[in-house]
Amino acid sequence: MAYNLLKGKKGIIFGALDEKSIAWQTALKAYEEGAEFTLSNTPTAIRFGTVDELAKQCKTIIIPADATSVQDLENVFSKSIEHFGGKVDFVLHSIGMSMNVRKKRVYNDLDYDYFKTTLDISALSFHKLLQVAFKLDAINEWGSVLALSYIAAQRTLYAYNDMADAKALLESIARSFGYIYGRERKIRVNTISQSPTMTTAGSGVRVMSGLMDFTDRMSPLGNASAEECANYCITLFSDLTKKVTMQNLYHDGGFSSMGMSNKAMQMYNKSFTCEHCQD
Amino acid sequence: MAYNLLKGKKGIIFGALDEKSIAWQTALKAYEEGAEFTLSNTPTAIRFGTVDELAKQCKTIIIPADATSVQDLENVFSKSIEHFGGKVDFVLHSIGMSMNVRKKRVYNDLDYDYFKTTLDISALSFHKLLQVAFKLDAINEWGSVLALSYIAAQRTLYAYNDMADAKALLESIARSFGYIYGRERKIRVNTISQSPTMTTAGSGVRVMSGLMDFTDRMSPLGNASAEECANYCITLFSDLTKKVTMQNLYHDGGFSSMGMSNKAMQMYNKSFTCEHCQD
Amino acid sequence: MAYNLLKGKKGIIFGALDEKSIAWQTALKAYEEGAEFTLSNTPTAIRFGTVDELAKQCKTIIIPADATSVQDLENVFSKSIEHFGGKVDFVLHSIGMSMNVRKKRVYNDLDYDYFKTTLDISALSFHKLLQVAFKLDAINEWGSVLALSYIAAQRTLYAYNDMADAKALLESIARSFGYIYGRERKIRVNTISQSPTMTTAGSGVRVMSGLMDFTDRMSPLGNASAEECANYCITLFSDLTKKVTMQNLYHDGGFSSMGMSNKAMQMYNKSFTCEHCQD
Amino acid sequence: MAYNLLKGKKGIIFGALDEKSIAWQTALKAYEEGAEFTLSNTPTAIRFGTVDELAKQCKTIIIPADATSVQDLENVFSKSIEHFGGKVDFVLHSIGMSMNVRKKRVYNDLDYDYFKTTLDISALSFHKLLQVAFKLDAINEWGSVLALSYIAAQRTLYAYNDMADAKALLESIARSFGYIYGRERKIRVNTISQSPTMTTAGSGVRVMSGLMDFTDRMSPLGNASAEECANYCITLFSDLTKKVTMQNLYHDGGFSSMGMSNKAMQMYNKSFTCEHCQD
Repeated sequence: MAYNLLKGKKGIIFGALDEKSIAWQTALKAYEEGAEFTLSNTPTAIRFGTVDELAKQCKTIIIPADATSVQDLENVFSKSIEHFGGKVDFVLHSIGMSMNVRKKRVYNDLDYDYFKTTLDISALSFHKLLQVAFKLDAINEWGSVLALSYIAAQRTLYAYNDMADAKALLESIARSFGYIYGRERKIRVNTISQSPTMTTAGSGVRVMSGLMDFTDRMSPLGNASAEECANYCITLFSDLTKKVTMQNLYHDGGFSSMGMSNKAMQMYNKSFTCEHCQD
Repeated sequence: MAYNLLKGKKGIIFGALDEKSIAWQTALKAYEEGAEFTLSNTPTAIRFGTVDELAKQCKTIIIPADATSVQDLENVFSKSIEHFGGKVDFVLHSIGMSMNVRKKRVYNDLDYDYFKTTLDISALSFHKLLQVAFKLDAINEWGSVLALSYIAAQRTLYAYNDMADAKALLESIARSFGYIYGRERKIRVNTISQSPTMTTAGSGVRVMSGLMDFTDRMSPLGNASAEECANYCITLFSDLTKKVTMQNLYHDGGFSSMGMSNKAMQMYNKSFTCEHCQD
Repeated sequence: MAYNLLKGKKGIIFGALDEKSIAWQTALKAYEEGAEFTLSNTPTAIRFGTVDELAKQCKTIIIPADATSVQDLENVFSKSIEHFGGKVDFVLHSIGMSMNVRKKRVYNDLDYDYFKTTLDISALSFHKLLQVAFKLDAINEWGSVLALSYIAAQRTLYAYNDMADAKALLESIARSFGYIYGRERKIRVNTISQSPTMTTAGSGVRVMSGLMDFTDRMSPLGNASAEECANYCITLFSDLTKKVTMQNLYHDGGFSSMGMSNKAMQMYNKSFTCEHCQD
Repeated sequence: MAYNLLKGKKGIIFGALDEKSIAWQTALKAYEEGAEFTLSNTPTAIRFGTVDELAKQCKTIIIPADATSVQDLENVFSKSIEHFGGKVDFVLHSIGMSMNVRKKRVYNDLDYDYFKTTLDISALSFHKLLQVAFKLDAINEWGSVLALSYIAAQRTLYAYNDMADAKALLESIARSFGYIYGRERKIRVNTISQSPTMTTAGSGVRVMSGLMDFTDRMSPLGNASAEECANYCITLFSDLTKKVTMQNLYHDGGFSSMGMSNKAMQMYNKSFTCEHCQD
């Protein structure tokens, strides 16, 4: 069911890889809701993913970019403005990667070049995106910029590694630049802290399935899916949320406000009651 | 501009007094967006306010209730179910009052009967509303319940008095009951922490105008108005935010994430530079 | 090992019942550290507990009081001032009780008289204590007031019931009154958010043992004991923490900053691997 | 007045420049409290500051190090262990610098090489320090590691620039590594979020004096001084706070829990009442 919530709005969506991606789902919803947008991802992701199908479905173009490159980002914004014949109204940043995670370097044995790359790709890219757009004056008044985050920014999760620090930095950048964008341009900048999602990227984090079972049982409404996250993004791009800015918004079925649920506790307690599974 | 975001949805809106009320503005928007709802307020508020005009405009009924009375609340839900011929999908709680504020009792000289009344009206009423609705099974699956709060629940504001404590309690009740509603009924419960708003109720707080100037200059997007808050409520009643629960959501132009803005600092610094206004 | 950290300081300790009590352990440590203090608890608690032994050990007196009674609290402060021949320097509030928990009323079927009593005993008593002390000018400059809280104030825990709301209210009162005490008297007011502790009071909460195992495995340093909490209280009563006020301080082995630990996850995952304990 | 709180403890203090430094004051207090420690700072800081005087006063050595260099940090820990004939019990990280601030690059025109350097010096250095110490097994069980932070990590302050993001990253690193240190070594890791302090480093931030007046009037106990912060550090290095970990601890006279104080509001309101200072 569509509402025309984004009718007439233009945007840029970074990070759609395949249909599991939150960015992909957001593109589909935004299209349904009447928005036009361009898509961007790295040349590698474009080659290995299926983002060209998405572009066809949404009748749009793909502009390749390494989001750590200021020049590439300038190109994405310039091309998008050219494509639309005007500024954009919304931007989605769904970008993150850790070489330490990929190479199985644990947190007490990080490679510092990898760490810097994690921060550059997953957090500084957001500052670069915002700074490029600011200098090009590329976003309309009352526009909306979103980045995707995770609760590891506030609470340590086993094996989430340096991505936790990158997300904390990302959220800080959203606040810091949100102040300037609000003051100077009446544009809002927020992050969504989404449930763990079995995206192709997310699946890199070890012990993902046990964790997802736990968060699902802890969350009174269960884990939020990529599609549900897309719906939430739409409301934050719409004109109905104009005064929400500099926030980190939990979209997680209630997980962030839980200390312990009945369901998770029962599952946890099982490990004691069964004599076959004692330490 | 309307989107039919609440088409087919039924609700109950507590606390509309006059057109300055957030509840009033939310009723207007909900009506525009295709919802049907009943209105409720105290007999006194109905007599002194203009809620009957609102009822006419929205083609609905008013069900008087003292929100501290379980019986009255049962009546509101029963009558509403009868009116709609079925359960409701959303509820707005916009209720708060402090006799200590009204009678100018400062925080270090509170009257404890007044304090208990503040808590009963401004916070326990929300629990009662939720418990009554739970027992009557009055809310549909994936329904949404909202209460209005204020940042005084987290940070002390001069002269906000025992309302700060009432709001902290209100937000806690939203979390506690949100867990149960999520788990048992797939219903979400949240609070919106709104900018200071010059409602008829809000004007009771002393030094309100100085404070509102300060928060307006501190907030990169300025204070949020009652009408803007109404828009935000609509998104939270809609089907696009199904997995947001147990949250306190700041709708405040960015105030909650600010330490000090340039604008507010400049105004503050003026008091030093002018020799006419030294202590 | 003692440091004379509280040498010359006078105080009042509310809520010691038996040697499991945090208040009891704090009394022992305060005594070791050179403080003098009076003890207070309800007549019932004094009768059923063993606080007279503690009084003997610490060479002090017990002043019975129902902490919901302003008159009783006035008596505690007056008698204490008389006992010391002067004002006090520190106060510990370790008071909480829920009839809803005791009578097994679940959160969606609360008795409202019980709920009000929970709030009165567990939270308003702290306001009353602070207001009485304020009016009597009973606390010295740079004095320190502490109340004990729990993370349920921020995150919902199965079966913690209306005590969660009471703790949220308690923490808000600490902030609100902390502002006034700081401004007017240079006195600090804080809450400690302690690990779940197997006190005689705490044992009333259902499913306590499973929960304590979980929090112990989640907390990198394990659950904090009553004795360790007592040590922390001493630092907050000392002259080394003069500018810490209006804070809720987690003393929990790191639990509050954890999303998921390896240890807890391994225990949780066991419930899947053993075929004998499937649903 | 000293208590022997750190008797027999060994430590390393990074970042003492001159007597305004928090690290300097902490060294003096730690010495008074019976600790032995080594001092470290960059060769430049050692040349331009007066840290050799401090070393003389505290009868200790200085080990120069660029805290972004893993090799230099290894040297600091190895030399310190050699100096003491054993492991250390506490470490203070008081290190931060932004070239963007120095070169007056505003937040919407950051130089990215400078930004990366800000993060490397002010945040990654803390990870490096912790990782080096972890690999060398350089810290005793129940040891304590502290870093100094600022509320800009949570709330945007005009002109604080990319240091806000660096502090957010620093606090995240403290949590992430605190989990591992707690689990593996029973060592705690925390940050102190201190009032703005007129250190030689802090004076680099523009509009510092107006801001310090504002925070002083907002904080019910006034701004906390470097010396008071040193006292607080001592308690966190002592054996009385063993179960406090992964926390960001506000030492700010209450500022972090304030929305608006009477004092600050009165000063703010002056700018309206004087006709000479209207816009």
